[in-house]
Amino acid sequence: MPQDLTLYIGNKNYSSWSMRIGVLLTQFEIGFREIKVRFDSFEPNSEFKKAITPLTPVGSVPVLVDNTLVIWDSLAIAEYLNEKFLERQLWPDGLPQRARARSLCAAIHSGFRGLRSACPMNIEADLSEVGAIAWRDNAALRADMHVLEGLLVDALQRYGGPFLFGQQFSIADAFYAPVVMRLNSYALPVSAPLAAYMQHITQLPSVQAWIANALQEKDFLAFEEPYRLRASG
Amino acid sequence: MPQDLTLYIGNKNYSSWSMRIGVLLTQFEIGFREIKVRFDSFEPNSEFKKAITPLTPVGSVPVLVDNTLVIWDSLAIAEYLNEKFLERQLWPDGLPQRARARSLCAAIHSGFRGLRSACPMNIEADLSEVGAIAWRDNAALRADMHVLEGLLVDALQRYGGPFLFGQQFSIADAFYAPVVMRLNSYALPVSAPLAAYMQHITQLPSVQAWIANALQEKDFLAFEEPYRLRASG
Ligand SMILES: N[C@@H](CCC(=O)N[C@@H](CS)C(=O)NCC(=O)O)C(=O)O
Ligand SMILES: N[C@@H](CCC(=O)N[C@@H](CS)C(=O)NCC(=O)O)C(=O)O
Repeated sequence: MPQDLTLYIGNKNYSSWSMRIGVLLTQFEIGFREIKVRFDSFEPNSEFKKAITPLTPVGSVPVLVDNTLVIWDSLAIAEYLNEKFLERQLWPDGLPQRARARSLCAAIHSGFRGLRSACPMNIEADLSEVGAIAWRDNAALRADMHVLEGLLVDALQRYGGPFLFGQQFSIADAFYAPVVMRLNSYALPVSAPLAAYMQHITQLPSVQAWIANALQEKDFLAFEEPYRLRASG
Repeated sequence: MPQDLTLYIGNKNYSSWSMRIGVLLTQFEIGFREIKVRFDSFEPNSEFKKAITPLTPVGSVPVLVDNTLVIWDSLAIAEYLNEKFLERQLWPDGLPQRARARSLCAAIHSGFRGLRSACPMNIEADLSEVGAIAWRDNAALRADMHVLEGLLVDALQRYGGPFLFGQQFSIADAFYAPVVMRLNSYALPVSAPLAAYMQHITQLPSVQAWIANALQEKDFLAFEEPYRLRASG
């Protein structure tokens, strides 16, 4: 049945929420059809909204369609996939580990606003200078990075790495993959264990494939670019 | 083991995130010890932060402690309770129903910002005039209410009510209980089916108990009161 799954995503360079599910499905080798809905804008009359609103009343990507079932929101999609493919253990094994993994995912799902607003995902861009200035001036960003370091390094040490919950990739890693992209692009200062985790995530085949597609897009969207007037290179 | 559960919450009059879990546990008759951490402020040096930060690096309530396990974020807590008490069916029965319920919870967990910022929960207050003005002037609020109506009424009709997923109370109802409190306080215009749902939720014993405690608090917090200088009555 996996071939019945269709995932609607946005621009791979910018859509951090889409990336979680794209990477999750790819990493677990769950087959799916991908439909990209380009971010022309998020205005009510945009082509994006016209394409996506008939599927989901909340008007955002990612959206997963499984036959007649439509599921939106990256976390709801992840929980659905976990239930549907229970034997593959998309969440870590063990009730306490799953509880901790869900708390970690919740932190990035509805928090870390300082990091998310200062450093929107932009895979193609080298924003190291922007990152250095934000690091110097933006206390909310520094506070979020402090919490992020604590959370991730605690998990890496507690469960032994190289993934957040030990030897196996899980939904938690999929949810932090876009965070890793941000840390890369903005070159924010990180501890050695976090740097090692970032490198491990960045070189995963599923992440490399997403990055390669993002670089191929060459679709510069001014409204997603608070820091640049044109693409790199 | 339920007596080992400890739930840290904030002021019941204001803490919409705490209310979800308080109502969820009470409605499912899961025993727990409740510890209220008063919202003196959310500044780093507040008594609130001093009490809660040792438990959770994200520094927010609710927090559930189950023996040595600490879980934060209302959605992560709900998923944990669902796993721990699987036979009680905290989520609706059926994979498609659960997928839809999770999408609904995600919508209020990380969306509906127009509604949430215009109408912060304030159980004790009569804010009908504020609500009428917001309804007239605030397009984001009206847009959110349009989506909310669509989502909730669709579920009520599809599964037959009186709860969002049919005859049984579920996590989805717990997540929308604070929304119902907002709709009540701000007296926003709603359709007949939504009004019936609001009434059904408001009169639940678990919700009535929460409201009664909120009214007893009489703890007016200026920083939670964008619209008033003193308590009602
Ligand atoms: N909580 C949602 C958020 C999804 C989201 O905001 N997606 C962005 C693209 S990365 C979007 O579609 N935005 C449309 C809009 O803001 O109108 C999820 O986890 O899926
Ligand atoms: N996504 C979190 C949000 C929790 C939250 O924001 N709680 C508020 C009280 S209702 C809080 O503790 N705020 C503290 C702060 O903003 O610093 C959850 O679902 O539990």
